[in-house]
Amino acid sequence: MQSYPSKLLELAVGELAKLPGIGHRTALRMALHLLKKSIQEVEALGNAVIKMRNDVIYCTICHNISDQETCAICANPKRDQALVCIVEDIRDVFAIENTGQFTGVYHVLGGIISPIDGIGPHDLSIESLSERVAAGKIAEVILALPATIEGDTTSFYLYRRLAPYGIRLTAIARGVSVGDELEHTDEVTLGRSILNRMPYEAGRK
Amino acid sequence: MQSYPSKLLELAVGELAKLPGIGHRTALRMALHLLKKSIQEVEALGNAVIKMRNDVIYCTICHNISDQETCAICANPKRDQALVCIVEDIRDVFAIENTGQFTGVYHVLGGIISPIDGIGPHDLSIESLSERVAAGKIAEVILALPATIEGDTTSFYLYRRLAPYGIRLTAIARGVSVGDELEHTDEVTLGRSILNRMPYEAGRK
Repeated sequence: MQSYPSKLLELAVGELAKLPGIGHRTALRMALHLLKKSIQEVEALGNAVIKMRNDVIYCTICHNISDQETCAICANPKRDQALVCIVEDIRDVFAIENTGQFTGVYHVLGGIISPIDGIGPHDLSIESLSERVAAGKIAEVILALPATIEGDTTSFYLYRRLAPYGIRLTAIARGVSVGDELEHTDEVTLGRSILNRMPYEAGRK
Repeated sequence: MQSYPSKLLELAVGELAKLPGIGHRTALRMALHLLKKSIQEVEALGNAVIKMRNDVIYCTICHNISDQETCAICANPKRDQALVCIVEDIRDVFAIENTGQFTGVYHVLGGIISPIDGIGPHDLSIESLSERVAAGKIAEVILALPATIEGDTTSFYLYRRLAPYGIRLTAIARGVSVGDELEHTDEVTLGRSILNRMPYEAGRK
């Protein structure tokens, strides 16, 4: 891309191009699209992302994104608080909620163990999960982590951490294709994999 | 997509999904990406698009985007001010500048005539083009509009508007793309490229 006719445009394109999956050409298309919109519309976009980043909080129980200290799922008396589904990130909560098959609550790890990316157990919300389980009100923990080596490693780590508490430990059924992210799994497969969850056995694929 | 765990997230996703080519799933991915970034980084993005929209101005001569009243191309004494290339929008200026083949200046219409979209000549910067040509310092106008029905309609309209001024009116060549097989070229393009054949010059691309 050659020099831009405007520094302001160049700056905006540079910032937009930092978004995931957005190259310079798409960022330029977005910026030119925004130039055709009203000042109010562009301010609505700019302020919405800033306000979200500044004001959003995470549920103190499950670490899901929330507007209150306790998220709507943890605060819902109809959800089974004794059944906890462990997921990698917030998008997985969306994916599972979309299936309409799960009546329990979540625990969002905020990532998975991945030595190659320098992510160890202490970078994840595993301590607070242990505390939740240790409190004694949880009957079953469902491991709903990606069907990847990192996901399996994390499941195994959690199995070792949680097994001493004598709770029921299950993993979602591997109807999910190996290598796929939960986010990209169709709702029927993902829903069935929750219904058909099986006792966790170390080393089993 | 079911109910969001956070109104702030929902708002930000809704705004991001208004960007061209961005669906709700991609917008959610972007929003969650932004949540992992620092407040400073998200403010840089939000403020860059707002500042661009509020402070960018358009060149009073060619309507290209600019930070000054006269854009860098129109203000450049090395550019041939008597040679004006007419384009649909700012992205076409980028595309032509990238070729490095054009030494004249531009006139950005801001769209093309499209009755189906309710865009007529008065919605485009055609009046100011007439004034530029009427001022008598332009020798040639190149029509570089899209090879579509709307593009052809607009070219024909401009031809009728500008012909009385007795300037040279040209259109960019339409033909087989460099690197294309004849076999894969559409019939209209190939037909035109035969009708508009040019004297063979050895070594010319």
